[in-house]
Amino acid sequence: MHYIGVDIGGMSIKAGIVDNKGNILVNGKISTEQERGFANTIRNIADLCQKLLDKAGLSEDDIDSIGVVTPGIPDKKNGILIFSNNLQFRNVPIKSELQKYFDIPVYLDNDANAAALAESVAGASKNIENSVLITLGTGIGGGIIINNKIYSGFNDAGSELGHMTIVHDGIRCSCGRRGCFEKYASASALISQTREAAGKNPESIINKITNGNQEKIDAKTAFEAQRKGDSTADKVVSQYIEYLADGVMNIINMLFPEIIVIGGGVGNEGENLFEPLRKALYKRVYTHDVAETKIKGAVMGNKAGIVGAAMLGKKR
Amino acid sequence: MHYIGVDIGGMSIKAGIVDNKGNILVNGKISTEQERGFANTIRNIADLCQKLLDKAGLSEDDIDSIGVVTPGIPDKKNGILIFSNNLQFRNVPIKSELQKYFDIPVYLDNDANAAALAESVAGASKNIENSVLITLGTGIGGGIIINNKIYSGFNDAGSELGHMTIVHDGIRCSCGRRGCFEKYASASALISQTREAAGKNPESIINKITNGNQEKIDAKTAFEAQRKGDSTADKVVSQYIEYLADGVMNIINMLFPEIIVIGGGVGNEGENLFEPLRKALYKRVYTHDVAETKIKGAVMGNKAGIVGAAMLGKKR
Repeated sequence: MHYIGVDIGGMSIKAGIVDNKGNILVNGKISTEQERGFANTIRNIADLCQKLLDKAGLSEDDIDSIGVVTPGIPDKKNGILIFSNNLQFRNVPIKSELQKYFDIPVYLDNDANAAALAESVAGASKNIENSVLITLGTGIGGGIIINNKIYSGFNDAGSELGHMTIVHDGIRCSCGRRGCFEKYASASALISQTREAAGKNPESIINKITNGNQEKIDAKTAFEAQRKGDSTADKVVSQYIEYLADGVMNIINMLFPEIIVIGGGVGNEGENLFEPLRKALYKRVYTHDVAETKIKGAVMGNKAGIVGAAMLGKKR
Repeated sequence: MHYIGVDIGGMSIKAGIVDNKGNILVNGKISTEQERGFANTIRNIADLCQKLLDKAGLSEDDIDSIGVVTPGIPDKKNGILIFSNNLQFRNVPIKSELQKYFDIPVYLDNDANAAALAESVAGASKNIENSVLITLGTGIGGGIIINNKIYSGFNDAGSELGHMTIVHDGIRCSCGRRGCFEKYASASALISQTREAAGKNPESIINKITNGNQEKIDAKTAFEAQRKGDSTADKVVSQYIEYLADGVMNIINMLFPEIIVIGGGVGNEGENLFEPLRKALYKRVYTHDVAETKIKGAVMGNKAGIVGAAMLGKKR
């Protein structure tokens, strides 16, 4: 049996046909065209799915279910996208609209949750019952897998990992709160921290790497300068890891997943990040009498949305 | 069918026979006598259980399972208590020892987890699939209920709610970390905060209530002085609620339970605490597009351990 996964983003929509092990057989991409309205977008998605079926030599009968993921908060039970910061759509009935084109079960979820599911089906946390994905990007997103399924609370709005407070009364966040995890440990936060340190320390290698142009500082710069022996960069990275460890440890304390998978821009640092993070976590562990949560890098990359979406029907 | 629940504490052991709705039919209490060794304690527990069966006019055949709860970390699969701060016992095989006396399934869990289960079976979160219990006492404990069962992670060591960081680099905690939730929002933390404010503000009603004796300040004092119109106490309570709201919001963000049940000493303040807490949470909610988590007071009191323990076999 096969599954269709659809990953709706602000700019583009990706879709693919996926087998039951999480392999993508065929895939394609279209523009979201938000401005042309929701019904148009759904029609385009249906067209794309039909093209993919044709390309794979499959028919609707070969497809067990369609999964659709978006940024924002879904009403999973009714298949409605309630709210999304990145999409103009609000309270749109994705499931019923899509079922005008295909007589197949349709499942909805948040894209970060789906990415966590994709890692647990075919990626870094493959076959692990309980895991958490954290993505360190513009913000911090993530998803929680409990008993091989997405967990997102009684109204599907849980696992907002980036908005847990780690600094009481700290930096104001766009969510309205203060001291949110993502204001200290996202890629954007690391860039701000690197820029501030570079400004205060003109001699830092950070400024050599970027020819003194702060705009060129990205989430890799501090790590790069640290590898070149720069003490300013070393302090930036060390402090960043302390913040990251606070948030990761909060997740461990609460959920004790077997694996925490780290993705997003900063996650690409791999062991440069994970090794010192493990040490910072080790210092914070309550008891060493029990096995500890493993830290691994995400591996699904930009396939995560399609694969996670496709697996919604199988892992519900 | 009936269930036996055994609640092992540092000083005493409570046990009871419980029906399948969570009602205690008969119960009793013995001293823990830790100093006389583990085998002795188990023998005393077996004696107590037999006495309870006799008293209830029941036999071993009427009992579906025995649940045992302790402070600390259990190995649930093997029925072994791995580690507890409050008990001298370490790596003790409670299940196999108890099964020398009764040929019945034995289940183990942490006492805070069991209290959360008790609330979800017969208390404040009765019949609610997903809930969290937070107890505001000497520390902050708690338990997570997902799909009507205790959730505690892959190695049974999860839901250490009191040790999530809410103040990066904050007050040092006995766990070795800094800025833990319980250093700011436990009953002990509230007492420290009240004492500090009373010391700095001699005119405060707090000092009248206690006749200037700081030792008499307890977790109720600030609330009492606040009700009498004291502005110092009002500030203490307001700040305390901000800390509490940070931690509670972190739990909501991650797990979005339908109900958060609050127990422990400070929880006894009831609506004096819950009403301003709800307001502080409302300010922190990411979106009001979805139904919100309810805040309720714990109702199981000192029956929670026995009832939660007894229900381990039923809700596994």
